[in-house]
Amino acid sequence: MTDVVSYRPEPGDFAYTFGGRAAVRRVAPGAVLELYTEDCYGGQVREVGDLPSKVCEFPYLNPVTGPFHVEGAEPGDTLAVHFVEIVPARDWAISSTFPHFGALTGTHATATLQPPLDEVVWRYDVDVAARTVRYRARRGDFSVELPLEPMHGTAGVAPAAGEVRMTLVPDVHGGNMDTPELRAGVTAYFGVNVPGAMFALGDGHCRQGHGEVCGSGIEAAMNTVVIVDLVKGAVTPTPRLETDDALMAVGSARPLEDAYRISQHDLVTWSAGLTGLDPLDAYQLISQAGEAPVGNVCDPNYTMLAKVAKRYLGSANAYDGVHERLRATARHYLSGR
Amino acid sequence: MTDVVSYRPEPGDFAYTFGGRAAVRRVAPGAVLELYTEDCYGGQVREVGDLPSKVCEFPYLNPVTGPFHVEGAEPGDTLAVHFVEIVPARDWAISSTFPHFGALTGTHATATLQPPLDEVVWRYDVDVAARTVRYRARRGDFSVELPLEPMHGTAGVAPAAGEVRMTLVPDVHGGNMDTPELRAGVTAYFGVNVPGAMFALGDGHCRQGHGEVCGSGIEAAMNTVVIVDLVKGAVTPTPRLETDDALMAVGSARPLEDAYRISQHDLVTWSAGLTGLDPLDAYQLISQAGEAPVGNVCDPNYTMLAKVAKRYLGSANAYDGVHERLRATARHYLSGR
Amino acid sequence: MTDVVSYRPEPGDFAYTFGGRAAVRRVAPGAVLELYTEDCYGGQVREVGDLPSKVCEFPYLNPVTGPFHVEGAEPGDTLAVHFVEIVPARDWAISSTFPHFGALTGTHATATLQPPLDEVVWRYDVDVAARTVRYRARRGDFSVELPLEPMHGTAGVAPAAGEVRMTLVPDVHGGNMDTPELRAGVTAYFGVNVPGAMFALGDGHCRQGHGEVCGSGIEAAMNTVVIVDLVKGAVTPTPRLETDDALMAVGSARPLEDAYRISQHDLVTWSAGLTGLDPLDAYQLISQAGEAPVGNVCDPNYTMLAKVAKRYLGSANAYDGVHERLRATARHYLSGR
Amino acid sequence: MTDVVSYRPEPGDFAYTFGGRAAVRRVAPGAVLELYTEDCYGGQVREVGDLPSKVCEFPYLNPVTGPFHVEGAEPGDTLAVHFVEIVPARDWAISSTFPHFGALTGTHATATLQPPLDEVVWRYDVDVAARTVRYRARRGDFSVELPLEPMHGTAGVAPAAGEVRMTLVPDVHGGNMDTPELRAGVTAYFGVNVPGAMFALGDGHCRQGHGEVCGSGIEAAMNTVVIVDLVKGAVTPTPRLETDDALMAVGSARPLEDAYRISQHDLVTWSAGLTGLDPLDAYQLISQAGEAPVGNVCDPNYTMLAKVAKRYLGSANAYDGVHERLRATARHYLSGR
Repeated sequence: MTDVVSYRPEPGDFAYTFGGRAAVRRVAPGAVLELYTEDCYGGQVREVGDLPSKVCEFPYLNPVTGPFHVEGAEPGDTLAVHFVEIVPARDWAISSTFPHFGALTGTHATATLQPPLDEVVWRYDVDVAARTVRYRARRGDFSVELPLEPMHGTAGVAPAAGEVRMTLVPDVHGGNMDTPELRAGVTAYFGVNVPGAMFALGDGHCRQGHGEVCGSGIEAAMNTVVIVDLVKGAVTPTPRLETDDALMAVGSARPLEDAYRISQHDLVTWSAGLTGLDPLDAYQLISQAGEAPVGNVCDPNYTMLAKVAKRYLGSANAYDGVHERLRATARHYLSGR
Repeated sequence: MTDVVSYRPEPGDFAYTFGGRAAVRRVAPGAVLELYTEDCYGGQVREVGDLPSKVCEFPYLNPVTGPFHVEGAEPGDTLAVHFVEIVPARDWAISSTFPHFGALTGTHATATLQPPLDEVVWRYDVDVAARTVRYRARRGDFSVELPLEPMHGTAGVAPAAGEVRMTLVPDVHGGNMDTPELRAGVTAYFGVNVPGAMFALGDGHCRQGHGEVCGSGIEAAMNTVVIVDLVKGAVTPTPRLETDDALMAVGSARPLEDAYRISQHDLVTWSAGLTGLDPLDAYQLISQAGEAPVGNVCDPNYTMLAKVAKRYLGSANAYDGVHERLRATARHYLSGR
Repeated sequence: MTDVVSYRPEPGDFAYTFGGRAAVRRVAPGAVLELYTEDCYGGQVREVGDLPSKVCEFPYLNPVTGPFHVEGAEPGDTLAVHFVEIVPARDWAISSTFPHFGALTGTHATATLQPPLDEVVWRYDVDVAARTVRYRARRGDFSVELPLEPMHGTAGVAPAAGEVRMTLVPDVHGGNMDTPELRAGVTAYFGVNVPGAMFALGDGHCRQGHGEVCGSGIEAAMNTVVIVDLVKGAVTPTPRLETDDALMAVGSARPLEDAYRISQHDLVTWSAGLTGLDPLDAYQLISQAGEAPVGNVCDPNYTMLAKVAKRYLGSANAYDGVHERLRATARHYLSGR
Repeated sequence: MTDVVSYRPEPGDFAYTFGGRAAVRRVAPGAVLELYTEDCYGGQVREVGDLPSKVCEFPYLNPVTGPFHVEGAEPGDTLAVHFVEIVPARDWAISSTFPHFGALTGTHATATLQPPLDEVVWRYDVDVAARTVRYRARRGDFSVELPLEPMHGTAGVAPAAGEVRMTLVPDVHGGNMDTPELRAGVTAYFGVNVPGAMFALGDGHCRQGHGEVCGSGIEAAMNTVVIVDLVKGAVTPTPRLETDDALMAVGSARPLEDAYRISQHDLVTWSAGLTGLDPLDAYQLISQAGEAPVGNVCDPNYTMLAKVAKRYLGSANAYDGVHERLRATARHYLSGR
């Protein structure tokens, strides 16, 4: 008998930080959460004439739904969050440039004396049934359909050491990792830092290129279903993802090679632990079999992932098989709907 | 009637730089080159007991076959090199750590006071017919087959401005880019800096993970066939790749985000030029449709690629269709063998 | 008539974050604060046998004294903090390596597979009267006196956007900037983000080399006197320092060139505003007359400063002369003691 | 009896690379070289209307005088170059921005889609007798005198491994280090990579701020006197500088923290070797006593130095006292002129 919690926040209910907020709900491990998440513009950008710098007010950007207190979660445990489905809530979605934000512009940190790029908004048509989004150039009549591949840019827990971080920041607590790998079918693992873990979720994208080079994906409100669970006594030093086929570790840092190093280091040591391989043997195996999906190269920390197919790791079984169990729960939930 | 040039260098014939060497052959545009390339160890590492630091002598690392003078190539032209096939020349291949080299160790540049990691050699079995390589752990009996996916780590032309660069370095002339995308079926484009372009090739890998995290792929001598051609008057600011399905731009720099920026910037401006899109419209399209394959995160410059499927660019036709013509020549060559 | 507030925290009174804490005192603008600050080890490392990883407990590192609520401070104002004197509170001080922390070692972010450097503690003799500290090698009998040049590594205010940051982190709110420029005679400026500003101070160093390469200075408890004041309606985008002779801007970021860019960008635009120079004219002047003192190259963000002598800026008068007024108040306070 | 070699290159005699050039002169160790060096614009920018992008032609930038073959220099030796005097050759000097070059602009590597900053030239008056240069704003009538502190931005030897590098690049062979520390009174040390070392010199600056933030110093032709000497069998891994009072190591790399790491690592290990200190003891001493002068943050590699006062290193004697001997030779030369 599975707990199902449906939660749709009112406008004043969103959080803009990880940490520093009271829980919106207490949920039991194993609970299914049916959630509504708003887009990164707080739903304020609806037309190409709605410039984010005009209609959005810092720091009320990138709202997240939550946090959820998961009963029994304690520091030293791992929170497992299985993504059952991610469905755009509207038939349109937005992307934009934003002054001094993005990879191909001077920014607050990569400070230059050049004026910012033009602030431009693109509005996409979203066809959930056909699983497409339509891009339309702002100048000229070029238009093309792209596959709909929904994901969440932002997911995480309260940070350690009493910190509170803006939802725009990715770090070891998760946050704004902006990786297309965070899609339906994935189980995400987060180290628990505070009682209840305090999980929150937002920043849905209909799809996103690698690195989110202009600074935003195809931003959309989402109806998303996740299942939360606990792995007691399991340490997770940086967020990890698991699919039926692959294991992934997430690194968020600057410069970008440090995001790469964090993710590869964690995948090497995790793989060594799972297989019994010597660390240098695991280093060699990942060197030849590993992948490195790029998350974002525009946020306050950049994000890269290290990824390896499970079939190369023998009989490795991560987190005592929680992914398989959550997959089964998800099938049960979906079939019973 | 296609020119076919077969060339197998003797031990003293290899080059260790791009630039600064006389051509080993003059070839006409359109010529098919049947080449032998040695592995990055110069073939000196054959067993797990052959430590690279003992059997290799700096700077005689990473030998390349060439350079080839392509008749008629002048600064301001583009050299097109189509990779017809890449076949391992032996039934074994080598990978290793190397002291203070690789992504998860202090290096010459990321200088630390820690002692180096152990220098360890792995020998792989190569089965060309089955298209597999076999990994074997050095400690314990773990073993696994990986797909054979041959590629060249190093390819390029003489640099501009009279420079001569070690073959270990990737930069705008090509060089040690170490990207798995440089495989059979690809056409690579290089801006010509000196008369004859002076193309050279080496550093075959049976396969390589993303970033070449330990510092080496599965290194192998190769029998490789390429077709060289010229696109007169076409400027190529940084190396580019084309397949039947995709366009790619290559960035090599430190820190890694600059390699990302160079590659994405070139793909955005190249796509804008091919489609007639406004640069910000192209920026947006690549932001949602683009990929970012990681080359290496261990060489003197790091390498990332920006990639986009041609189907998203409408009727774009790069370099006046030379890729299609070289594909046809390749089929003709292969069928006549 | 000057307010003088003396405050010596008890062991449980220290803060380990900027933000997220109630004020320990409310003080009026113009108040003199006589403060005791504990060293970054919380006073737990007293002998060379006291290893920080054993006697300190994360996150109870780098305690700060405060926060102080400055009456009338509102977001959009600038808090001015004049450092009157910084005097070591003991006749000894400590420095150490710390596992996977420092510039010449792999770290959490620059993740390597090498074991950490040895954890070693050095104890210095401090002679306040002679203004010297004595270094003693741990192996062998080499010993040398260095000048005593007291400074505070950590000073700042509550961050914007509801964030709470560990005291180990430097950013636009100040924090662990670890610059030797934060010494007696300096006025520091911080943009106010929350009512009361919530100023806190800690991490005294008897001296520190440029970059704090091993990860710690000569760490000491301090008796420090500061005067706090407000500049209403003055925006300070990143911390700034002023002495009788120079203006400085502080940049904290990774990679280190971004810390450089932030600081130089702020000094260029600040100088342009003060002098009426065109921004490119100010860029040129700072390019030839500017300095770039290095703060730290070991903390979660690195810190660099941009500095220019006031005599090169004509009649520029920063923050309406508050530094001069606070200097006068300091002289008055010191003469009346 | 000291050899004195006077050499003033004709327009066609300048070199634009380190390596790849025949010697302009053979000189004996101990020879005094009286040299003329042209400015980085090749003397083509004389007025504020002479835009570098119009009057200079890539790659004919940053000409150097030389190379000089020093008799007896062999790989594995160290070349010592003592700077006796550096005197501006004209009563004017030039600085400028250059499109997509400098620290506060997008560049070729930090590629952005923003248009370049305006290209602007500043012409300075140089008064050698008064030891001043005069800055004049291009817009408005702001003007100020700055101290004349002549230095050379570019000095070095032929690289290792058969490489040839543009004079714009700093690396372990020296090159375009752009540090104000390379002034009269300094002895510079370079590891010898090829027979004769092939020393060359150029890029005089009347002065330069830290980091050369706009991309150029106050660029001037110079009449410069150096004395060259050899230290046989002494290995120098990266350029080093010595004054009467200090030792310095030079690091050139990207990101900037790696330039810092290289320089600090070399200073720590060099100091340990000179004093007999354990490496961690030297790490600690440099952490508290060391400085980190910034060279450039705009060239293809960035440059930082690590510096320590000799008085903190006991009886350390670098390179067997060659600096002292060359100082004596310099005094003898100057007194005999």
